[in-house]
Amino acid sequence: MPHIPLDESLPGITGLLNYRQDTALPIRQLTQILLRGESTLTEGERELIATVVSHGNQCKFCTAAHTAAADAFLGEQETAEKVKNDPEHAPVSEKMKHLLEIARKVQADARQVSAELVGKAREAGATDLEIHDTVLIASLFCLYNKYVDGLASVTPTEPAFYNRLAGILKASGYLPSPNRYATLNEV
Amino acid sequence: MPHIPLDESLPGITGLLNYRQDTALPIRQLTQILLRGESTLTEGERELIATVVSHGNQCKFCTAAHTAAADAFLGEQETAEKVKNDPEHAPVSEKMKHLLEIARKVQADARQVSAELVGKAREAGATDLEIHDTVLIASLFCLYNKYVDGLASVTPTEPAFYNRLAGILKASGYLPSPNRYATLNEV
Repeated sequence: MPHIPLDESLPGITGLLNYRQDTALPIRQLTQILLRGESTLTEGERELIATVVSHGNQCKFCTAAHTAAADAFLGEQETAEKVKNDPEHAPVSEKMKHLLEIARKVQADARQVSAELVGKAREAGATDLEIHDTVLIASLFCLYNKYVDGLASVTPTEPAFYNRLAGILKASGYLPSPNRYATLNEV
Repeated sequence: MPHIPLDESLPGITGLLNYRQDTALPIRQLTQILLRGESTLTEGERELIATVVSHGNQCKFCTAAHTAAADAFLGEQETAEKVKNDPEHAPVSEKMKHLLEIARKVQADARQVSAELVGKAREAGATDLEIHDTVLIASLFCLYNKYVDGLASVTPTEPAFYNRLAGILKASGYLPSPNRYATLNEV
């Protein structure tokens, strides 16, 4: 049960963003810029960063939601599964392997992002902006994970819920929109 | 040395917020609402939440900056020092003791914010919104700490730097403003 009263039809982050909408707006805007804005990283690659960070923080809601979002963008389910549980063999570029490792370090202890690791990412083709954005996306998802779990928001158990949420995140992005969650709980 | 090229006159978070200003704006707006907006928590109390989280993440820049900001609002240096290093004896209300403990849990592992701890905060007078805001401020400062340390931004060593920064944060808040950092490096 959540630590504060939240709309029961809006589990996980959705109820929190609805609870205090003035703070939700800049959180949504930041996420939209970083995950859907112009970038040399694909939307699928950026959702993978969100996925590995949420997985590292053991935030079940965010891990399931962004795994489903990454799957929706990538058109398959293998990559997100592998970056979480078998990163060495994940079918991603060398550059993404290093960026995902940077994201994991940011999650665990950001002081351990070493010049050596950043150098490897750069040798594999990562730009300054990609390195910046990877660190900021990882930091943002630590905010989300802690917000969701620190208030004990509800975590649905059916995979279909996360597929519906991922559909919304793929079609509409992260900004507020009217009737955004109209289809979230449909059966 | 920072992992990406940053303006050398802008250490810590200031150079990062200058590096990518489109992402900086919603981060600044969120911080302004949470730390300076209308609240039943004082500005000093909210800076204490930022301080204990930054201290928990061992982010030297943010700890020094928000310790100095809390000191500036509280008009003394004892409270911020105690909430970091001797929280049992910190001269804060029972409610704040519990809210600061919630913030520490959010920093360390947000899943450990228990119903019991939230209940204690509520018994000591904390409202739902104060509990919400404590968790979100703590989550936001995890973002800041990880952003600052994940990109190895520069940490000045002289206390006077942080007093100047705290003066800016007290007088001007967190939103962008012209010549915001004009006095940051003055000697």
